Amino acid sequence: MKKVRIGIIGAGRIGKIHADNLLRLPQVEIAAVSDLFAGPELESWAARRGITNITKDSNEIIDDPKIDAVFICSSTNTHAPLIKQAAVAGKHIFCEKPVSMDITHTMEAVTAAREAGVKLQIGFNRRFDHNFKRIREHVQSGTIGAPHIVKITSRDPNPPHEEYIQVSGGIFMDMMIHDFDLARYLSGSEVAEVYAQGNVLINPVFAKYGDLDTAIVTLRFDNGALGVIDNSRQAVYGYDQRVEVFGSKGNVAVTNDHPNTAEVSTAEGIMRDKPLNFFLERYTGAYLDETEQFIQCILHDQIVHVTGEDGMKAEQIALAAKLSHQLGRPVKISEVLELYNQSIVEKV
Amino acid sequence: MKKVRIGIIGAGRIGKIHADNLLRLPQVEIAAVSDLFAGPELESWAARRGITNITKDSNEIIDDPKIDAVFICSSTNTHAPLIKQAAVAGKHIFCEKPVSMDITHTMEAVTAAREAGVKLQIGFNRRFDHNFKRIREHVQSGTIGAPHIVKITSRDPNPPHEEYIQVSGGIFMDMMIHDFDLARYLSGSEVAEVYAQGNVLINPVFAKYGDLDTAIVTLRFDNGALGVIDNSRQAVYGYDQRVEVFGSKGNVAVTNDHPNTAEVSTAEGIMRDKPLNFFLERYTGAYLDETEQFIQCILHDQIVHVTGEDGMKAEQIALAAKLSHQLGRPVKISEVLELYNQSIVEKV
Amino acid sequence: MKKVRIGIIGAGRIGKIHADNLLRLPQVEIAAVSDLFAGPELESWAARRGITNITKDSNEIIDDPKIDAVFICSSTNTHAPLIKQAAVAGKHIFCEKPVSMDITHTMEAVTAAREAGVKLQIGFNRRFDHNFKRIREHVQSGTIGAPHIVKITSRDPNPPHEEYIQVSGGIFMDMMIHDFDLARYLSGSEVAEVYAQGNVLINPVFAKYGDLDTAIVTLRFDNGALGVIDNSRQAVYGYDQRVEVFGSKGNVAVTNDHPNTAEVSTAEGIMRDKPLNFFLERYTGAYLDETEQFIQCILHDQIVHVTGEDGMKAEQIALAAKLSHQLGRPVKISEVLELYNQSIVEKV
Amino acid sequence: MKKVRIGIIGAGRIGKIHADNLLRLPQVEIAAVSDLFAGPELESWAARRGITNITKDSNEIIDDPKIDAVFICSSTNTHAPLIKQAAVAGKHIFCEKPVSMDITHTMEAVTAAREAGVKLQIGFNRRFDHNFKRIREHVQSGTIGAPHIVKITSRDPNPPHEEYIQVSGGIFMDMMIHDFDLARYLSGSEVAEVYAQGNVLINPVFAKYGDLDTAIVTLRFDNGALGVIDNSRQAVYGYDQRVEVFGSKGNVAVTNDHPNTAEVSTAEGIMRDKPLNFFLERYTGAYLDETEQFIQCILHDQIVHVTGEDGMKAEQIALAAKLSHQLGRPVKISEVLELYNQSIVEKV
Repeated sequence: MKKVRIGIIGAGRIGKIHADNLLRLPQVEIAAVSDLFAGPELESWAARRGITNITKDSNEIIDDPKIDAVFICSSTNTHAPLIKQAAVAGKHIFCEKPVSMDITHTMEAVTAAREAGVKLQIGFNRRFDHNFKRIREHVQSGTIGAPHIVKITSRDPNPPHEEYIQVSGGIFMDMMIHDFDLARYLSGSEVAEVYAQGNVLINPVFAKYGDLDTAIVTLRFDNGALGVIDNSRQAVYGYDQRVEVFGSKGNVAVTNDHPNTAEVSTAEGIMRDKPLNFFLERYTGAYLDETEQFIQCILHDQIVHVTGEDGMKAEQIALAAKLSHQLGRPVKISEVLELYNQSIVEKV
Repeated sequence: MKKVRIGIIGAGRIGKIHADNLLRLPQVEIAAVSDLFAGPELESWAARRGITNITKDSNEIIDDPKIDAVFICSSTNTHAPLIKQAAVAGKHIFCEKPVSMDITHTMEAVTAAREAGVKLQIGFNRRFDHNFKRIREHVQSGTIGAPHIVKITSRDPNPPHEEYIQVSGGIFMDMMIHDFDLARYLSGSEVAEVYAQGNVLINPVFAKYGDLDTAIVTLRFDNGALGVIDNSRQAVYGYDQRVEVFGSKGNVAVTNDHPNTAEVSTAEGIMRDKPLNFFLERYTGAYLDETEQFIQCILHDQIVHVTGEDGMKAEQIALAAKLSHQLGRPVKISEVLELYNQSIVEKV
Repeated sequence: MKKVRIGIIGAGRIGKIHADNLLRLPQVEIAAVSDLFAGPELESWAARRGITNITKDSNEIIDDPKIDAVFICSSTNTHAPLIKQAAVAGKHIFCEKPVSMDITHTMEAVTAAREAGVKLQIGFNRRFDHNFKRIREHVQSGTIGAPHIVKITSRDPNPPHEEYIQVSGGIFMDMMIHDFDLARYLSGSEVAEVYAQGNVLINPVFAKYGDLDTAIVTLRFDNGALGVIDNSRQAVYGYDQRVEVFGSKGNVAVTNDHPNTAEVSTAEGIMRDKPLNFFLERYTGAYLDETEQFIQCILHDQIVHVTGEDGMKAEQIALAAKLSHQLGRPVKISEVLELYNQSIVEKV
Repeated sequence: MKKVRIGIIGAGRIGKIHADNLLRLPQVEIAAVSDLFAGPELESWAARRGITNITKDSNEIIDDPKIDAVFICSSTNTHAPLIKQAAVAGKHIFCEKPVSMDITHTMEAVTAAREAGVKLQIGFNRRFDHNFKRIREHVQSGTIGAPHIVKITSRDPNPPHEEYIQVSGGIFMDMMIHDFDLARYLSGSEVAEVYAQGNVLINPVFAKYGDLDTAIVTLRFDNGALGVIDNSRQAVYGYDQRVEVFGSKGNVAVTNDHPNTAEVSTAEGIMRDKPLNFFLERYTGAYLDETEQFIQCILHDQIVHVTGEDGMKAEQIALAAKLSHQLGRPVKISEVLELYNQSIVEKV
């Protein structure tokens, strides 16, 4: 059986995770890894995995005719140009979210991949999570009837560093974008309108960059259902990832995953350990599954589970949320592009 | 010890519950019960409880100099006039929520009680619930630090009858008003602004009367915290009453009460019984406690736990939500009165 | 409707609880209360409840022709003689457990009641508990198929005082007797054999009186099912009352009841409050229900829900457990009487 | 770094699992695999993993000087001879449980490994489970004080096939042996005495071979604590693996692991999915960790986490349970060898 030969562009934390997951798949070979800061540390890491082809130049990967697909794990500003370049070179593409901070660039990149006929999967790993998939199954099978209310809680254990805050794109584009994608995925409906509220309650450094650390966004879906997402940059008790979908015939809810089920009862009360600490522990299985599914789609020429269009739509919702917060009013998805082009929001 | 002599005005379902709870308190005597539809059924009910003084005329209660306090459990449109009348007569007053559908009438009634120096307690029974009190204790004692996000889910098991829908005042004034009061009570802060979204997803009869059956309201508090309340008129799995407050040092959440803790594991899955069915079962203890606390406040001349001002403020928030939904924009509590007087909403 | 006139013999803690529960039943009148130590405290307690007939002499109650039924809540050594006396006097009898410490006395008392044709209900209140009733319903309806394993955990929050330990009859007769009754009730089968293990791990005072503070008893039922009960006199985290029945088609388990559902998440972990503290809080509803059911059985001439025979059988199992522990071997229920009469165990 | 070269003896289900886990460890090389029934299926399986050395003869592995350690995963009757042979050959040994059905053979094998100075680890994988390790940590750190009661529930989802029942060694040696090891591990104390009760309630085929399908064993530990284990060969709701340790300062309990946290609420009730189905899903992490720990112990010359003596002691308890059931009385561990040599039980 011919192996799928992969090039990884960007070997930071998430690039390395994808690499390790790919190495567990028998049909895959990692042909090359590029990273702007490639050096002894990366070479040592690669050597332990039998990867010998390391470069600082992503062109070497994209120009290599023996490579079938690329994983774009470099910084966000490089995503859209790399997608376009890889599409022209006929590579299948797995790209981390978001495609870009500028919705027009994202549209161009998605279009380029479509026109080139290559597969483009966006790294919305939560679609592959065991809990959220189970919600989706119950919604799809009709267990809870027509969805009426979608509720998503997503709170990080610790805020990011200031350097990251500067370039993150803001809470809606960087953090809540996962929840916007999940809202579409779980409800089975497109988002029509959003209203965003937010505040800086954890650390003033967020205000310094025009960002928020606490936000609630309400959604109205095309099918009439309503939704609400709450995000916080700091839940001291750990990574808090809960979702529920309420419908005409019932409710399905998932709570957090914990490292164990131990319950300790003492004179002080009943205690259990905090949830799994952060996304690497919480979504271990989802990261593995998203790479495996992507490879399967290449091997069997199937439509990927998270398309470029999915990436673009989540970005539109994130942009609508940002606009809503700036304008202090609900914003329709249909008016996002016009508002954006009117420069009503500062472009990034 | 002198007993507190009570007159009950309105002996429907809720009036009877208050009566039975009062009968369990040794310091109380029910001196009289009035109901527009008093007849053999009510007389039989009263006889079994040793209550002999039954009348159709509430004036007989308010004019009776031997009566210390009244419970106003009649229809909403009578609340404000009865409060004013009872205040003038020097009676302490327990009044079911809401005081009225017209915020200006409510303000007059609350003012009348204050000026007469009588106690006025509003029937926001949920403040006395074991779960919500425990949340309040944790917020007050600082367990969770400064509140950042307040989340309230309140879903009824079955929608009301059409006759009730016609006169209910709408989902915000009839149903979500409990949650608005809870939001103030649990957060320890006033609400500054609301944004209301809603839809008719359960039964078109709600649309017929300009009402909603599904609604999500986001709140901004004076202290900067955010909140969200979701209501549905029909949760087929039973009465769904959950609350959480998230803060800088943690989160406190309460789930539903169940009739038992039995968990049944079969080849089909793991099952447990639905939550306690509706407010009479779910808030049994809270109804008892609110009457007991009211009597204690009379006996020891203390400030009641839910004042007329509390009632008024919850109505202002409900009105703001109604205005927000009609106007399609966030509404500040500070602009409610002006908007209302401009007849921007139809008055009830 | 004629009221059932009750005499209460023994007005300690449990006698007062029965009295207060009886006062909530409209068909009941408490005609008299007797207590060896009747005095001002009891008279004051009675006066607040409108009970005027207080005596030190239980004969005054048993000889009163206007009294229909007695509640025997005095010390255990008086139970059997009082049952016999009340039976002869034609009174219906509610008697606290155990009937006696001497199985032959218990048999005589139960026989006396049967021959007199009066109702005799034993105070195994846990049969009326919401959780255990739900288990019973699932077993009876076949949800879990044929029972294979019955598991009961019963642990007290604090050990009793030394004065109580001296006269309690030991852990099997005083504490685990409730679980023996529950085992019969939930399994729907008689116990055939027991094996008891125990130790003194909490306080040496138990050893001083030949008693245990920690015990595990395994049961073999007539229908082939197996059972196990564990008891401890001190669970520092509160009253621990859990039961499960495992069968050919599934498992049904009940956990503890808690004062609220609040779950607090902080940097330290996830916490909730301890279970309801002790039997008065935990079995509030069961105590009310057992008195109500007893009164209903009198009014409608029905068989009581916990008969004298039930009391006797639980005592036989307790005695078998005591013998098993002394002899260091399993003991059949069928050999209990013979072993007892052989004075193999010291009689109490 | 030199790699640890492993030979796997016996490539059935469990041998293959160990192989796959070993392949994930960078310091390991699988040098050879032997299996009596080696053929095309095994060769294909090995080829996909880059293992080229396949044989039917375990001697080829034991005699291979380049092999550092063996994994004995063949049928139970071969374990003891292979341990002795491998010990003489100077190989470190990982052996599946039990070492043998005959306690004298086990003792000889354990002695042989000790005298040869090779490491011998027994496959009690549950010691490496995230839940049970957490219990152990709480016991060791004193969170729950001195242990008083250890409770273990272990129920399989489906009974084994008749061919397996014939040779399994019976419920105590085949299934409950895991729980005996866990009881020692969690309590931190040796078992002094056992009493075993059992029955055939699921399928008469167990009786045909003198075996049981349902059993409860009570334990008395050297430190005075008590224990109880219940086993069933068929829990229709899935693999049921729960443990609790109760002590002077509290209780620590673990419940089952589930495939997801989804809770579905409908008009029928509240439902969740059954536990993880069987040991391969439930103990995935534990299987991986036990191989990793074994390799670490070889690399760093440390004492293994489950020694041959641990294996022997668990077998002694299992034998005591078997004797107890046959004799109908409690059996001390100290009398096991004598009873066994007296042929009071049929030897296997």
